[in-house]
Amino acid sequence: MSDDAPFGPDRHITLAGPLALDGGGVLAPVNFAYETYGTLNADASNAILLCHALTGDQYVASDHPVTGKPGWWTRMVGPGKPIDTDRYFVVCPNVIGSCMGSSGPASLAEDGKPYGMRFPVITIRDMVRAQAMLLDHLGIDRLYAVVGGSMGGMQVVSWAATYPTRVASAVIIASTARHSAQNIAFHEVGRQAIMADPNWRGGDYYADGKGPDAGLAVARMAAHITYLSEQGLTEKFGRRLQNRDAKTFGFDADFQVESYLRHQGLSFTDRFDANSYLYITRAMDYFDLAEEHGGHLANAFRGSATRFCLVSFDTDWLYPTTDSRNIVHALNASGAPVSFVELSAPFGHDSFLLDVPDLNRVVDGFLKAGGQ
Amino acid sequence: MSDDAPFGPDRHITLAGPLALDGGGVLAPVNFAYETYGTLNADASNAILLCHALTGDQYVASDHPVTGKPGWWTRMVGPGKPIDTDRYFVVCPNVIGSCMGSSGPASLAEDGKPYGMRFPVITIRDMVRAQAMLLDHLGIDRLYAVVGGSMGGMQVVSWAATYPTRVASAVIIASTARHSAQNIAFHEVGRQAIMADPNWRGGDYYADGKGPDAGLAVARMAAHITYLSEQGLTEKFGRRLQNRDAKTFGFDADFQVESYLRHQGLSFTDRFDANSYLYITRAMDYFDLAEEHGGHLANAFRGSATRFCLVSFDTDWLYPTTDSRNIVHALNASGAPVSFVELSAPFGHDSFLLDVPDLNRVVDGFLKAGGQ
Repeated sequence: MSDDAPFGPDRHITLAGPLALDGGGVLAPVNFAYETYGTLNADASNAILLCHALTGDQYVASDHPVTGKPGWWTRMVGPGKPIDTDRYFVVCPNVIGSCMGSSGPASLAEDGKPYGMRFPVITIRDMVRAQAMLLDHLGIDRLYAVVGGSMGGMQVVSWAATYPTRVASAVIIASTARHSAQNIAFHEVGRQAIMADPNWRGGDYYADGKGPDAGLAVARMAAHITYLSEQGLTEKFGRRLQNRDAKTFGFDADFQVESYLRHQGLSFTDRFDANSYLYITRAMDYFDLAEEHGGHLANAFRGSATRFCLVSFDTDWLYPTTDSRNIVHALNASGAPVSFVELSAPFGHDSFLLDVPDLNRVVDGFLKAGGQ
Repeated sequence: MSDDAPFGPDRHITLAGPLALDGGGVLAPVNFAYETYGTLNADASNAILLCHALTGDQYVASDHPVTGKPGWWTRMVGPGKPIDTDRYFVVCPNVIGSCMGSSGPASLAEDGKPYGMRFPVITIRDMVRAQAMLLDHLGIDRLYAVVGGSMGGMQVVSWAATYPTRVASAVIIASTARHSAQNIAFHEVGRQAIMADPNWRGGDYYADGKGPDAGLAVARMAAHITYLSEQGLTEKFGRRLQNRDAKTFGFDADFQVESYLRHQGLSFTDRFDANSYLYITRAMDYFDLAEEHGGHLANAFRGSATRFCLVSFDTDWLYPTTDSRNIVHALNASGAPVSFVELSAPFGHDSFLLDVPDLNRVVDGFLKAGGQ
C-alpha cells in the first residue's frame, strides 16, 4: 500500500527491500507507517527524525487512532515548540517489530498469514537501517537531527554510529548504550508473563482475535513500575485507598496504586500486540553498542562529525545517569562535541514524556544552535 | 495433631484458639508448625523468637524437607553462631497464612476441604498474635530477643509494639514499618500474575494438584529482581551468555540472568503455595505500624523497655535505609534505646541472608550485650 503523497498524517508505504538483518536473515518487503509534520525545505536540510520508545508509535503530535488521546510528545513537537514544526520537517516512523503499521509479527507473511513468531528477531540497528531505507525513499539524505528518549535514544545513538555522515545532531534522552542485567531481567519477566498465558499459543493467536491479554497486562504492570520513581509513586499515591474509607481485608484494589497499575495493564492490551512486545524487548536486550564496535564504545564514534546532546534524569533508575555518562565519556574519548546535563525531575524514567520545562529548554537551545 | 514433645525438629501443634483477627473474623483452631534449637533454661529467660520472611519458613537451621537444602539462616543460627544455640533457646514458627504446616489457605476448613480464598485475610499483627499464642503454650512469657529480616523484621517491630513487656531485645534487619507505594505495586504485579493464570481458578486448585505454577513463577521472578541490587546483578551476570558463544536471535534464555530468573521462578513453585503468596503479600501491603497508632510511629513505642537494634544495607532498594531510619527516629522520639547501622554489602535486599560478616558481628554483639 502506498499513499498518494509521501508527507502528511497516516502515511503508509511498502518498500521492496530486502532489509538485511543482524540476525542473518532478510526482511522483504518492508512496510512503513509514519507521520510527518511541517514542510521539507528545498535542499532537504531541515529534517528531524524522531525515534519512539518501546510502546510508543508514530503518533508523536497526532491523536492516537485507537485511544483517541493526543500524541505522546505534544509538549515537545509542534508549532513554536522546541521541535518546531514551523521550522523543521519532522518524520516519525513506527519501528519495525511494532504493531502500528510497520512490519512486525502481526504483519502478513508471504503465505498470507500473520508472521507470529516466524517474524525474524530484530535489533535496534535493524530498526535504524529500516528507517534509513525509508528516508532514502523520501529523498532525505542528511538529517538535521535525530531525537529520541528511552529506546528512541538507543536508536539515536545507533544512528550516529551506523550513519555518521547522515546525522548532523543527535539528541539522546534518558537512554543507554547497552541494556544492563537488571534491564534484561525486567524484560524477561514481561516476556515470561506473556508466554505463560495459554492464549499466547506460541504467538499464533491472531486468527480468532483472542490474544494473551492477561499476560500482556502483567508485563505492562511490571514494566510500568520501572518507568516511575519510588518518590513519584509515593507523591502520586502513597498508601491512599481507592474509593473507600477502610481496608477491605480482601484482594480488590484497595490501594490507589493497585487500581492505577491494573488500569495501565488493561488499557495497554487495547493498543499493543503481545508478540511485538516480545520482539521489541528482545531488540532492546540485545542492544550493546560497544559490542558492535570491538568492545569499545568510543570506537562507535571515531571521526564522527555529529553534535551530541545527552539528557538524563536524577530519579530515573531504569536508565540512570551513569548510563548517559558512559556514552558521554565515549564521545569525549572519540573527540565528538557533546553537551550533557542531568535534570532533576520527580517522575523517574517517564520524565522525558512529562512536564519538565528544563528538558524543553535544553532541546530547544541545542537544536537552534545547530544552525537551521 | 500434636507431637509428643514441645521442643525439637518438625514440631506441630493445633491450638483451639480462637485467634481474633484484625480483619474482624477469628481463626479457630490454629495450626502451628515450628522448629526449635537449643535448650530452654529453667526460668525460660533465654528464648529467642525468629521471624521468617515472605517465602521463608521454620527451617532456619534445619534441612528443608522439600528442597533438601540447608536452613536459610545457618550463617546466623547454630552452635557458636551469633544466635548461639548453645546459649539460647531458638524457636521459629511458620507464619499463619503460609504453607509449611501452620494454618493457611491450603489448610482444611471445617468442611474438610482446603480453605482456598475462604481463608481470612490476615495482617502482620495477626501473625504476631498467633506467635504469642504459641509461646503461651510453650510456657515462654518473655523473650530474650525477637529477631527477623524483611517481613521477619516487620513482625519484630510489631511484636515490640504489641507486646512491649514480652520483648527484652528486638533485632530488625532490612525492614520497614510501612509498605511503600512501590512495595505495594510490585506485590500487586505478582498477585495479578497468579490470578491471571487459568489454573488459579479462584484459588480452588488443590483437588487435582495442578496449581497456577506459571503465574506463581512470574510473580517470583518479578519479586526476585527486587531482592537483588543492580550492582549485584551486574557483578553476578552482566550481559554474559548462557552456555553459548553468540546470541541466538530467538527467545531462549540467551543471557545468564534470564536463565537464572527462570530457574528461580520454576523452583519456587515446587515449595510454595500460590494462595499463600497472595495472603502474605497482602499482609505485608497492609502493614503500616504508624496507622495502628494514631498515625504517629513513635506512639507505637511509648514507654517501651525493649532494646532495639536496626540494620539496613546500602544496596537494598526494596526497604532502603530511609525505612530503617524512620523507625529509628520514632524510637528516638519515644525514648527507647536503639542502635542502628547501615552496612555496605553488594547483594541488595538479600544481603540479610548472605555472606555479610559485619551483620553477624552486629547481631552477636547486640545479643551478648543483652546480658544472657
